[in-house]
Amino acid sequence: MRIGELSSRTGVPVPTIKYYLREGLLPSGERTSPNQAQYGDGHVRRLKLVRAMLEVGKLSIAATREVLNAIDAPGGTLHGTLGAAQSAVTAEPSAGGDEDGARQEADRLVAVLAERRGWRVKPGGAARQALIQVVAAYQRLGQEDLLGILDEYAVAAERLAAAEIAVIAGRSELDGQVEGVVIGLVLGDALMAAMRRLAQEDVSRRAVGERAN
Amino acid sequence: MRIGELSSRTGVPVPTIKYYLREGLLPSGERTSPNQAQYGDGHVRRLKLVRAMLEVGKLSIAATREVLNAIDAPGGTLHGTLGAAQSAVTAEPSAGGDEDGARQEADRLVAVLAERRGWRVKPGGAARQALIQVVAAYQRLGQEDLLGILDEYAVAAERLAAAEIAVIAGRSELDGQVEGVVIGLVLGDALMAAMRRLAQEDVSRRAVGERAN
Repeated sequence: MRIGELSSRTGVPVPTIKYYLREGLLPSGERTSPNQAQYGDGHVRRLKLVRAMLEVGKLSIAATREVLNAIDAPGGTLHGTLGAAQSAVTAEPSAGGDEDGARQEADRLVAVLAERRGWRVKPGGAARQALIQVVAAYQRLGQEDLLGILDEYAVAAERLAAAEIAVIAGRSELDGQVEGVVIGLVLGDALMAAMRRLAQEDVSRRAVGERAN
Repeated sequence: MRIGELSSRTGVPVPTIKYYLREGLLPSGERTSPNQAQYGDGHVRRLKLVRAMLEVGKLSIAATREVLNAIDAPGGTLHGTLGAAQSAVTAEPSAGGDEDGARQEADRLVAVLAERRGWRVKPGGAARQALIQVVAAYQRLGQEDLLGILDEYAVAAERLAAAEIAVIAGRSELDGQVEGVVIGLVLGDALMAAMRRLAQEDVSRRAVGERAN
């Protein structure tokens, strides 16, 4: 199909598609003349994935490119793809000082948590550093009581991870598995955030005895 | 204290503090001369909150301002604060067309979920619209099997919301409760995202039988 049909089949405007092509988010089509190229179903599929990462996952162009590279890496394992995609979407924690020692205390708290949960996770990994940063923020704000439910978060995360990987491992093709890992990672954050807001709204409304309207 | 001490006590550079003052994220100090102002412990506390919202919560300046307004609104209830803060941090779903009917199908799926969970949530609320958008994205990408664990997400969200509100309701002062609602909302997303990554890393490593290194 030509770029116009690719646009109409995905709802993505032609100039936007050209921008993604320039940014390397979408592979080039097959050139049929100096000014024309043909695109296939693979382009439709990839374009939908790009839109989901940018619009729903709120990833940057650079992070989206990295995530796609993780999917496309030849000979990748599921575990390797997950690691690469996690690095791509997890922002480096801001360096900043630790004048108040909060980060050191948070580091200890996360180590104890990982030990208690029996988690085998890399000490210097991006996910772990991100968690340490968040825990330190709670402590700096004097919200230690809210860290009392850290295990509730951990249990929820364990269950979701186990359920998700079971679904993905049940898929017959490796391509589908790799894509599922990345989609579960990126869109799963957005899904959980929206779900939390709805549950908070319900719990809060019950607490004040208001009726839905 | 002067602005220099405010800076050294929070680790926030003076020019950044001045920027926050101009942007209305921090109330003005008490002016003691044309070029000097005095700041108090309230400024230290607020400045830490602003940093956490921007750096850990990844909110924009505008969203942070709205969240702070929700905290400062006089006579606010906890439920009202939550609603205002949720609106501030939940991006409007992109309008876009629904050529493929995915959003309509997602709307139905979310309605059935809310009914099944007994959630009393506003039909047009920001949280609900955000969830519909994410579910539609899964469907457009052909990931319906991953939506099979939607109830796992819902249960996790319910438990976290209930645990969080119990901690917050146990606080003795309304100010602390209001602040807790907002911090739980914004930093809780970051906490859950980091926790999910760690649990995914552990589950994935077990699946491949690799050892932590």
